[in-house]
This record gives sequence, structure tokens and C-alpha cells, in this order.
Amino acid sequence: MAAAASSLLAGAGSSSCAAISTRRTRVNRAVASLPSPSRTPCTPLRVSPARPLRNRVVASAAPAVQPPAASRVSTVVDVDLGDRSYPIYIGAGLLNEPDLLQRHVHGKRVLVVTNTTVAPLYLEKVTWALTHDNPNVSVESVILPDGEKYKDMDTLMKVFDKAIQSRLDRRCTFVALGGGVIGDMCGFAAAAFLRGVNFIQIPTTLMAQVDSSVGGKTGINHPLGKNLIGAFYQPQCVLIDTDTLNTLPDRELASGIAEVVKYGLIRDAPFFEWQEKNMTLLLAREPSALAYAIKRSCENKAEVVAQDEKESGLRATLNLGHTFGHAIETGSGYGAWFHGEAVAAGTVMAADMSHRLGWIDESIKKRVIDILEKAKLPIAPPGAMTVEKFKSIMAVDKKVADGLLRLILLKGPLGSCVFTGDYDSNALDETLRAFCDS
Amino acid sequence: MAAAASSLLAGAGSSSCAAISTRRTRVNRAVASLPSPSRTPCTPLRVSPARPLRNRVVASAAPAVQPPAASRVSTVVDVDLGDRSYPIYIGAGLLNEPDLLQRHVHGKRVLVVTNTTVAPLYLEKVTWALTHDNPNVSVESVILPDGEKYKDMDTLMKVFDKAIQSRLDRRCTFVALGGGVIGDMCGFAAAAFLRGVNFIQIPTTLMAQVDSSVGGKTGINHPLGKNLIGAFYQPQCVLIDTDTLNTLPDRELASGIAEVVKYGLIRDAPFFEWQEKNMTLLLAREPSALAYAIKRSCENKAEVVAQDEKESGLRATLNLGHTFGHAIETGSGYGAWFHGEAVAAGTVMAADMSHRLGWIDESIKKRVIDILEKAKLPIAPPGAMTVEKFKSIMAVDKKVADGLLRLILLKGPLGSCVFTGDYDSNALDETLRAFCDS
Ligand SMILES: NC(=O)c1ccc[n+]([C@@H]2O[C@H](COP(=O)([O-])OP(=O)(O)OC[C@H]3O[C@@H](n4cnc5c(N)ncnc54)[C@H](O)[C@@H]3O)[C@@H](O)[C@H]2O)c1
Ligand SMILES: NC(=O)c1ccc[n+]([C@@H]2O[C@H](COP(=O)([O-])OP(=O)(O)OC[C@H]3O[C@@H](n4cnc5c(N)ncnc54)[C@H](O)[C@@H]3O)[C@@H](O)[C@H]2O)c1
Ligand SMILES: [Zn+2]
Ligand SMILES: [Zn+2]
Repeated sequence: MAAAASSLLAGAGSSSCAAISTRRTRVNRAVASLPSPSRTPCTPLRVSPARPLRNRVVASAAPAVQPPAASRVSTVVDVDLGDRSYPIYIGAGLLNEPDLLQRHVHGKRVLVVTNTTVAPLYLEKVTWALTHDNPNVSVESVILPDGEKYKDMDTLMKVFDKAIQSRLDRRCTFVALGGGVIGDMCGFAAAAFLRGVNFIQIPTTLMAQVDSSVGGKTGINHPLGKNLIGAFYQPQCVLIDTDTLNTLPDRELASGIAEVVKYGLIRDAPFFEWQEKNMTLLLAREPSALAYAIKRSCENKAEVVAQDEKESGLRATLNLGHTFGHAIETGSGYGAWFHGEAVAAGTVMAADMSHRLGWIDESIKKRVIDILEKAKLPIAPPGAMTVEKFKSIMAVDKKVADGLLRLILLKGPLGSCVFTGDYDSNALDETLRAFCDS
Repeated sequence: MAAAASSLLAGAGSSSCAAISTRRTRVNRAVASLPSPSRTPCTPLRVSPARPLRNRVVASAAPAVQPPAASRVSTVVDVDLGDRSYPIYIGAGLLNEPDLLQRHVHGKRVLVVTNTTVAPLYLEKVTWALTHDNPNVSVESVILPDGEKYKDMDTLMKVFDKAIQSRLDRRCTFVALGGGVIGDMCGFAAAAFLRGVNFIQIPTTLMAQVDSSVGGKTGINHPLGKNLIGAFYQPQCVLIDTDTLNTLPDRELASGIAEVVKYGLIRDAPFFEWQEKNMTLLLAREPSALAYAIKRSCENKAEVVAQDEKESGLRATLNLGHTFGHAIETGSGYGAWFHGEAVAAGTVMAADMSHRLGWIDESIKKRVIDILEKAKLPIAPPGAMTVEKFKSIMAVDKKVADGLLRLILLKGPLGSCVFTGDYDSNALDETLRAFCDS
């Protein structure tokens, strides 16, 4: 300890501000022609199906049934957030391209945060990518226990312990290597360590690749509710190597698909229709179908986040099915149900309530149920969930404002939703009763 | 729990966006005429004694020996941070003016975070101020154990527990009522709860009034170092009722004076000279002397923070004496020495090192020692601090970048400093040896 300290204290000033190349590749980005803006700032927030193109985030035209041919060349989706903008690289084998990662590392020291499942699969590869032809960078890692139930303060402290014991300073970079649990925890750790250090996301589940790694929401759970403690904190980049999905269990893949379905329902009807036709290919992990679904999902999320980073309105629509879903996750004990599974059941409940309110046709509700069943996702909450359990957990949801629970509900044609507290609460009660035994 | 949940879930939408009056009083704010900007962006950051006036932050002309007459009318110092700007209200008896607080409360629910010492003194008064003529607001409180050693993750969790058990939502307001420990913890809790809720500072120590409540640095300690986990998070307002200082122990008052002296040394020679003449009045708690010292300190801090919110350079100068000081706090066990006491000894060490480097005259070093002695503050570290202890603790300081320890040192005439890693490390070694027995 003393030796390290001496060398740390030895130096005369040599400010090393690494020049960071910002070269980017952009392929496969057909610009769709969409109508002009029609956003309404008032409550309830009405989200029209055809969203305006904004800045550098472009929506791709959807292929009819066959997705575009597979390519090892990466696609880049840019998340446009002013001086916090960053690229999402998507492609097969991207972990074999050290330059992509290295250009986003600040400082000479990296802490990879991963878990006991992912470390044996990818930690060596990521360490190679970070250090290949780059002897100045040293990599530490912290391997956390695996599971949603470890997305807590105690486990978070292990990241701080490791960072501090390794004497990392402000110019270090944290790398999240794993699914959404690791990404959310590592992101919050990066936000809070020394009040903020650089941060890179390498998501390795479909859930993390299409949703949690993009947009800067980070955090941990509290025993009384999910994601109640955290920060908005954007990464330097997101690197999605779709090859990592090859080791993912089927049930985890399906969990991610619940979020893919969400994007179609809240704002992208053509994407939903594409999914209806291509669900079998997705479940079979057809590489180009997966890559297309990821890219299109990231584009949708990036557009929403660029317009509403801190969730003052529009961004809340990304939580379709999540208020019910979080209640299921909390009420059945973290980890019993996967996040996407809970969201799937929650989405059916939201569709059911929307239909009871007369806001969507029966046919849309049916298509929601059909596509989720096709993806082998649950379409109802577990038996243990009672009406009272739902109500008491939903009362601490982050979307409650001044005591009023706002929900994301479907309204209008396919691909349209609202975020509102202005609904007949009888419909909510009826939905809860319809889906719970007691 | 179920009953509360039902009523929470009952409502149809009624968005209550309280209109917040921004009426302000500004008195006693003589605008000094100072030279134009001369800021150098390069390293080492050179800070010239006469700072340019910037935006709405104005430096007051210093009264010669007699401070201005006491007044119950508040002074307002504005912290200019774009859409995160906020006022600091300073005055005797401000807690008797409910309007000041109420205009900055968002939502209907307030959580006051305080401790076992301050709660019996001021919690009732603050609750009154929040609710007087304002029946819509309900106030909860969480009373933490008192002391720097409780500025930790476990204690922070108690704030989250209380907030979640009370079912607070995004539109709530956290109020920090206490010294710097409470302010730093409550601020970080507000930053992280639901990824950020409104936050008001009511500092009740001189330390918190002249320093910690202003500028948005929040956080907690880690067993291996101070303030290593936190966030930059700005309050809605800072309300300084100077009457609260009447109950403060002498040693705590002196601790705050260490930071007041700091502002003079790093950027405000006339203020330092005013302090040399008025230290006896300050220690005797002469109300107008205290109010003037607080106002002038807040102005200095606000100017620095407005120019460098996230501490990329200039702001680091506010840490004069703090690298040595933090080592003393960590090395002697949190709480044994007060923060300002450690900073005082650290300031003498920084002055000593600056003098060894030939950067300041002997006379300045002597004036530093004299004024701190006059304030009854320590001018050397405790006997337990060894050279090795200093070095190993300073190696994890937040101002280390890529292994290089940068320090704030005095350089040039009174009121000038630099933030630099470009110094002869022998001078550091000599200073450490001069102040440590082993
Ligand atoms: N921040 C956000 O915006 C956001 C959005 C959606 C979800 N989330 C969060 O994400 C979490 C869920 O993410 P998740 O579904 O990725 O769960 P997860 O992180 O628990 O990963 C699922 C499982 O897959 C394993 N795994 C990861 N990559 C693998 C691979 N390539 N091969 C084999 N196994 C692998 C993991 O170790 C784990 O056991 C939840 O905590 C949820 O709240 C956050
Ligand atoms: N965030 C920043 O920018 C910043 C700047 C400087 C210091 N700090 C932090 O502030 C902390 C030190 O603050 P502090 O010196 O106020 O310590 P403190 O908060 O521990 O308060 C000192 C003591 O005074 C008591 N007290 C508070 N108000 C009182 C009153 N009106 N009457 C009687 N007793 C009262 C407290 O209960 C405590 O026992 C440290 O943790 C330091 O790191 C932060
Ligand atoms: Zn989700
Ligand atoms: Zn200080």
C-alpha cells in the first residue's frame, strides 16, 4: 500500500488527455419518410403512432417478411442527448474489434463489472478487447453474484469496495458486462463513484440489448420496490455483440422479446407487424432477424429518450405493462419471474384495461395476447398475486404523482398509447379482479 | 397499507402544478468594480486574486473594520447554474418567514432529514414554517444519529426506508435540516431517490452555511475515504437562518471559520484582511459580523461553482488544505477531528509546502498560521498521523488523475492559488516530514 502510494505521489505534472478518435461506421440505415411533429405537451400525453424523425436518430424501413441479410459490419444507432450523446454499436463479433471499445475508454484504468455466469463466458474476451495493442490500459474486474435479488445496496457496495481498493481515480472507466441487472448496477456505481466516472455498456442479454443498456436509467432495488434508488447517467457507448446471445437460455431470450413487442405497441405498428410475421425466426435466433429487432428497438428507444431524457412525460410510455409488471416482480419475490415475463403479463393487463375503457378494439387486445403466447411468455400474473397486493405495491410506483397513479394504456389504432391518470378507476379494479383469484 | 393504496389508486387526473412565486429581496449588495476576466484554461490552473464578476453573482464591498448593521431583512445570493440556478437566503429569523420555504416546495409531501441533536432544537419550527397557512402540505421526518461516522451507506438507507415507507413519490421535496453531514447525506438521498426529487437545504452550522450547503456536492463516506460516493445535485434553495448559530458549540463555530479563511486565501484578499481585523467579533458571534462573513463566503463559493459546477478545474481550488485535511479525518477516524479543524491543519501544511516551493512569502505563511490560531483552530495534524499514513490515504484522493496527485497551493500575493500536479515532490515530502513525528 505504501509503495503504491509513493509512486502515486511521486509525479510532476504530465496531463495525459488521450485523443479519442470518433470515427464511425453507419450502414443499413435507410431513412424512412414520416410525417412532421405533432407532439402535445399537455396531460394525458397522447402518443401518435407515426413519430417524427429527430436529429440523428433515424427509423429504418421495415423489411416485409425477410429481414436484411446478416452482416459483420456494425450498425450504429446514435442517441442524441447534446453533450451526453453516444453511439450504440450493433453487430455480430464486435468484441473482436478492440478499436470500438478502446476509443471510448477514458484514462488508463478500467473496472469491468460482471457476474458469476457471464465472467466465464466473456470476461477474457472483453479484457483482450480492452488491452489488445493497448499496453497502457490496465483492467480490474469485480464478479458479482448472479440474480435480480442481488441488485441491491450490499452488492453495489462491492463495486465501490473494489474500485476504492484498486485506487481508481476520476479518470477511470467502468464497463458493465452482462444483462440488465449488471448494467443497472454498474451504471449507478459509475454515476456515484467519485460523483461520476466514465461508463461503457456491453449488454449480453436480449433484454439489455434492446432496452436496459440504452437511455441512462440506472439503479438498484429496495426491499419495498424495484429500481427505487438510482440515477440518470448516460454511458460513453453501448457495444452490442449479437454473438453473445448464442449462450443465452431460451427463457431469457423470450424475456427480452417482451420489450421488443412493447416498442411495436407503443409507437411502431409496422415493427409490431414485422414481429407477428417473424416471431418464429426470432425464437430460433436467426442472426439477421435478431440484429434487425435489436436495431429497430434501439432506434425506437433512442428517439424517445432523445426527446425526454428525464422522463417528464413521453419516456414514461416505455413503461407499458411495467406498473403491473413491477408489482408482479415485487409481489412474487425478485427473480421468481423474469423482468420480461412480468412485463408480458403486465402488457396483457394494460391491454385488457384499455379495452375495458373502450380505448382499443378487441382485435388489438387479441393480437397482444397472441404474439406474447407465440413468444412463450406468460399472459397473466402468477396465482399468488391478489388484488390487494397489486394495489399496495402499485401505490409506491415511481409514476405516482401527488397520490395519483398514472398508467400507460393503449388508445386508438395499433401503435398508439397514452400516459395518463385520467381514467375510470373502475376499469382498473375490474382488470385486477379479472386477473387475480382473490 | 391497503387503505392507503386504494385512495392512491382512486383518482382521475388533476395535475397540480403549483405556481411558484419568485419574488426576491436583494439588499446590501454593493457591486464592486473589479478587473475583467483573465482565466487560463491550461494546467496548472492559475487563479488570480481579483476574480471577474459573473452574471448575477456579485461580490460586496467589504466594510473596513465594522461590518454593516444587522438587519432582519434577508440577503439573497444567487447561484447561477442555468436551469439549475437557485437562491441562497441569508438572515436572522428567516425560519419565521414561511413563505421563503414554501415557495420552493414542490408537491404536497415533504421529508425533513435531520439528526438527534438538531431535531429537538429546530424540527418543530421548520415543520411550522412548511405548513403554516399551507394545509395541503404534509411533513414527515427522519431523525438520524448524529456524527460524521454515520455519514455512511447504512444511515443513508434509513432515509430511503422512510421515504418509501411513507410512499413518497417523485413530486416530493427532501429538506436537509442540520450541518454538513445531514446536508451531504440528504442531498445524495434526494439525488438517488426515484432517480431525483426536489431538495432544500436548511444549514444550521457555520460550516454548512458558508460551504457545504452551496454548490451541489453531495455524498457519503466509504470506510476507506471521505465523500467517495455521491452526486452533483443542486438544491431548489438554501435557507440560512443565522439565529440557528446561537445554539452551536464554540468548537463547531471555529470549524466553520476554517472555510471562511479559505475563501480569503484562495481568491479574496480583502475578505481575508477583513477577517484578520474582525476575528474576535466572529468568535463572539456578533450577529452582523457573522452575517457578513456568511454572505461573502457564499458569494465567493457561488462564483466559483457557477464557473465550474462539476469541478473540472477552478472548483478544485475550494479544496485548499482539504487533501491534507481529508487524510487527517480518515487517518484519525471520522469524527475525532472536525472537518474544519482538519482543514485548518491542512491549510497550514499547504501554506508550508507553498513556501518551501518558493511560491509565497514567509509573511503569508505566518498570517495563515496567525489567523487560524486566533480562531482557536489546530495548526498541525494530530500526533497519530505519520508520513506513510498521509501518503497512502492521499493516494485515493479524488484529485488524483491517472496516478498524479494534484494539490491546491498558494502562489503569488495574498489571495492567489494554483491547482496543479506540477510541483517538486521533495517539497511535499519535506512538509509531511516537518509535520509528522514519524
Ligand atoms: N435501465 C433500464 O432502462 C432497464 C430497462 C429494462 C430492464 N431493466 C432491468 O434489467 C434487469 C433485467 O435484465 P435481464 O433480463 O438482462 O436480467 P439479468 O441481468 O439478470 O440476466 C438474465 C440472466 O442471463 C444471464 N446472462 C447474461 N448474459 C448472458 C449470456 N450472454 N449468456 C448466458 N447467460 C447470460 C445472467 O447472468 C442472468 O442469469 C431488471 O433488473 C430490470 O429492472 C432496466
Ligand atoms: N458538500 C460540500 O461541498 C461540503 C463542503 C464542506 C464540508 N462538507 C461536509 O460537511 C461535513 C461537516 O459539516 P459540519 O461541520 O456542519 O458537521 P456536522 O453536520 O456533523 O455538524 C456538527 C455538529 O453540530 C451539530 N449541530 C448542527 N447544527 C446545530 C445547531 N444549530 N446547534 C447546535 N448543534 C448543531 C450537529 O448535530 C453536529 O453534532 C463533513 O462531512 C464534510 O465532508 C461538505
Ligand atoms: Zn422493462
Ligand atoms: Zn471543507
